[in-house]
Parts: sequence; C-alpha cells; structure tokens
Amino acid sequence: MRSAPATPRPELGDVRAILFDTFGSVVDWRGSLIADLGGWAAGRGIAGDWAGLVDAWRAAYAPSMDRVRRGELPWTILDDLHRATLEGLVARFGITGLGDADLDHINRGWHRLKPWPDAVPGLTRLRRRYIIGPLSNGNVALLVNMAKAAGIPWDMVCSTELFGHYKPDPETYLGAARMLGLAPGQVMMAAAHNGDLAAARACGLRTAFWPRVTEYGPRQVRDFAADAEWDIVAADIEDLASQLGV
Amino acid sequence: MRSAPATPRPELGDVRAILFDTFGSVVDWRGSLIADLGGWAAGRGIAGDWAGLVDAWRAAYAPSMDRVRRGELPWTILDDLHRATLEGLVARFGITGLGDADLDHINRGWHRLKPWPDAVPGLTRLRRRYIIGPLSNGNVALLVNMAKAAGIPWDMVCSTELFGHYKPDPETYLGAARMLGLAPGQVMMAAAHNGDLAAARACGLRTAFWPRVTEYGPRQVRDFAADAEWDIVAADIEDLASQLGV
Repeated sequence: MRSAPATPRPELGDVRAILFDTFGSVVDWRGSLIADLGGWAAGRGIAGDWAGLVDAWRAAYAPSMDRVRRGELPWTILDDLHRATLEGLVARFGITGLGDADLDHINRGWHRLKPWPDAVPGLTRLRRRYIIGPLSNGNVALLVNMAKAAGIPWDMVCSTELFGHYKPDPETYLGAARMLGLAPGQVMMAAAHNGDLAAARACGLRTAFWPRVTEYGPRQVRDFAADAEWDIVAADIEDLASQLGV
Repeated sequence: MRSAPATPRPELGDVRAILFDTFGSVVDWRGSLIADLGGWAAGRGIAGDWAGLVDAWRAAYAPSMDRVRRGELPWTILDDLHRATLEGLVARFGITGLGDADLDHINRGWHRLKPWPDAVPGLTRLRRRYIIGPLSNGNVALLVNMAKAAGIPWDMVCSTELFGHYKPDPETYLGAARMLGLAPGQVMMAAAHNGDLAAARACGLRTAFWPRVTEYGPRQVRDFAADAEWDIVAADIEDLASQLGV
C-alpha cells in the first residue's frame, strides 16, 4: 500500500467528474452476496453451497455480456443476464424448492451489495470537488437501489445500460463523457481493474487505480496491483481523495 | 394553500419513486436567470433588458422542442436548443459586444438555477422513503450541474435525453419507470404543471401537483391551481412530504 502524497497534480486540474467501476471497486460483491444469501437461506432451512454459487455466478458474468457484445443476444440488462444464469446455477448446485419470488430475491442480492469500508467516506470527500457517479455494467435500477440501500452519495447514476453497450466497449466511456458535457480528458475512470482503465485510457479518459486483493476471495488471479502507470495509483478510495487533495 | 392532512393514503402505498419536473416546479428559472444574468451584465457594463430576454427565451422553449418532436430537427439536447435560441434573442434585444465565451456563460445560466425555498428541505424528507430524481427536459449535464450547485439531493438524474424524446411524449414517463425497474403505478410524477401530470397519468403514473403562481412573473396565465383530481394536491414540496407522512 502506498502512502498518500500531499502534492497536487497539476496535470489533473481539468478533471471535473470521476466515474467509478462499481462491482469489486466500490462494493464487495462476493462477501456481500455470500453473507446475504447464506443468511437468507439459513433462515429458511435451504441448504446450499452459496459461496460456490456466487463464484460461479460471477464467472458467468463476462461470458454473458460477451454474448450481447457479439450480437447473439439483443441488448439485455444485467439483472436479466444474472437471472438467466441463476436459473441454471440453482439446478447445477442442487438447490431445490425455490419459487419465482425466491429467485427474484436472490437475483436482487446484487441490489443489496455492501461498500468496502473506505468507499462511502472516500466518495463523500471526493464529492466536495468532483461530480461522482458509477460507470458500471449494472443496470440503472440495480445501481440506484444499491446506492439507496448502502448510502453511496452519487451525484448521478451512470450505467452502461444508457449506451446499449457493456464496458469495455468505447461507447460507454465516450458516451458518459458526452452525456456530462465534458471532454474525455475531463473525466477520470476509477477502478480496481486494470482492464477497465486500459479501455478508458484508450478513449482519452484519466485513470485511477486501487487494488481489491480479496475481491475474488481465494480465486483471485489478477489486479493485485497496477500494471500500468495510471494517473493515480492509490491504496483505496480514501487515499484517492487524499491524493487529489480533498 | 392547503394545509397538510396527516392521513396516510393507502392507495399510494405502492409508490417507490417520485420523479420531479424541474424548471418551475423545483427551481425558479425566471427569478434565477434574471438575477444571475442581470448581475453578471451589470458587472461588465453590458446594458440589456434581461427580464425581457429571459421571458422570450422561455417562450421559445416549447416551440423548439416541438421542432424535434415533429422531426424537423434530429434529437437535440436542451443546452443546444437554448443556445440556438439565445443567438437570435441577443440580436433582437440589441445586446452587443458578446463573444462566444459570454454566450456560453449566459447559456449555462440554466445550469445555475436556484431552488424554491421549500424544494431542498422537502426533497431531503422525501428521499428518506422514496427514490427521488428529476424527470426533466433539461439534458443530463444541465441537471447534474444544477443539482451540484444548488445542493439538490437527487438519488439519480433522469433526463428525457435518455429516451430521445421530450415530455410530454409517453416514451419519457414509461422509459423512466422501466429504467427504474418499476411498474408505472409505482412511480409518481410530481410537478407544478397540470399538462405534465395529465400526460404522466395517461401512462399510468401516480401524480402530485403544487402551484408555483409566480413562475412566469406577471405573464403567468395557467397552472395557478390543480385542474384535475391529482393523487396529491399540495401547497409545495414540503407539504407533499407531509401529506406522504415523511
């Protein structure tokens, strides 16, 4: 972990908005879902390997978006991709006795994700100077409900749903900047994922990275550290605020 | 002005989100622009009938959106409609010596509108129970900048820009509900304009009205009172919160 230098960065003086990757970067999807679903199932006597299901669910995330990207599926919001995947996983994990309302409740676990401890304090500081919002593959309803439940103080909610493209398609980064009336260089993409930042940088956005080394639990294989010279490399979102002097 | 009854309204128990018309309903566009532009011009020794210009600017609002609605113009965000109208008005009002940056500053006066006194306190109360956001013909950048400057505590920023249609087209009301993952009856449209509410009701949304009898200054000709039995008729946004029991 780096300590936060107090030096201002004049080359970042044009940045007006910071857009955050959400799953993994701002909220702990894995820990939240395992606790949420495990607790809910225990209360109902429903046995299941919830950690295994959650890991498999997330493993299906990129392939399901790729089907949209390749045109095999028409534009489909993430809630609906999640739900389609979930139905197969419940069968695969041998979890029985779930009705439609149960599956809806499980699927909406993604609306109930909890922020990492530094997220809300860091965002609250950054909001004093910057427009802050998500730029997430989560659909608008998911992101709005998540922010409402978790107290995430977004100025606005930007989902890739608005552009009919999933990240890392360039339409998402460029669409967000245009929608905010800003040039790409006035927008900073902030994420715990090097790939997201590489795609944003290719579109001209500024970039900020911090690691989430437990995001994937024991299965994590990447994003333990910055793998390029991003504009800012921070320890977490509070450190990002410190490095930006807010 | 009505006093606020304390009776809960069980028929409104399904409402999850309240979407607000913005210009006139939440912010005082006329008073704000006259003060903002008049003060700016006085400081630069630029003479002009700013009240007259502001009234003429707003008078051009509906006709300019109608050109988009009829297909005479492709989709054009409100900032750009405002800017095109402004250039003609400056000439018509004999205001001279303005450069491009001055016209940009004047045009962005719409990003600096001030809320009516009850708006932020009322919205802060409503936000405790409901998802709140604008559903405004202002473009996203305008609405985000306005909220940031004025401290309006939206959960999300919903602009008709997202749907490529201006209110009162049904695509806007139905698009907003769908984007929030809600049925139309779970969304309440809230406005000081009867016409907006009539269009929302036709799409199945719930409705709330309060009057802004000085919105248009001495030129106001309508919307002094509710002209239909909206689900809620309030004195202002604080009274709306009271009537909803928050």
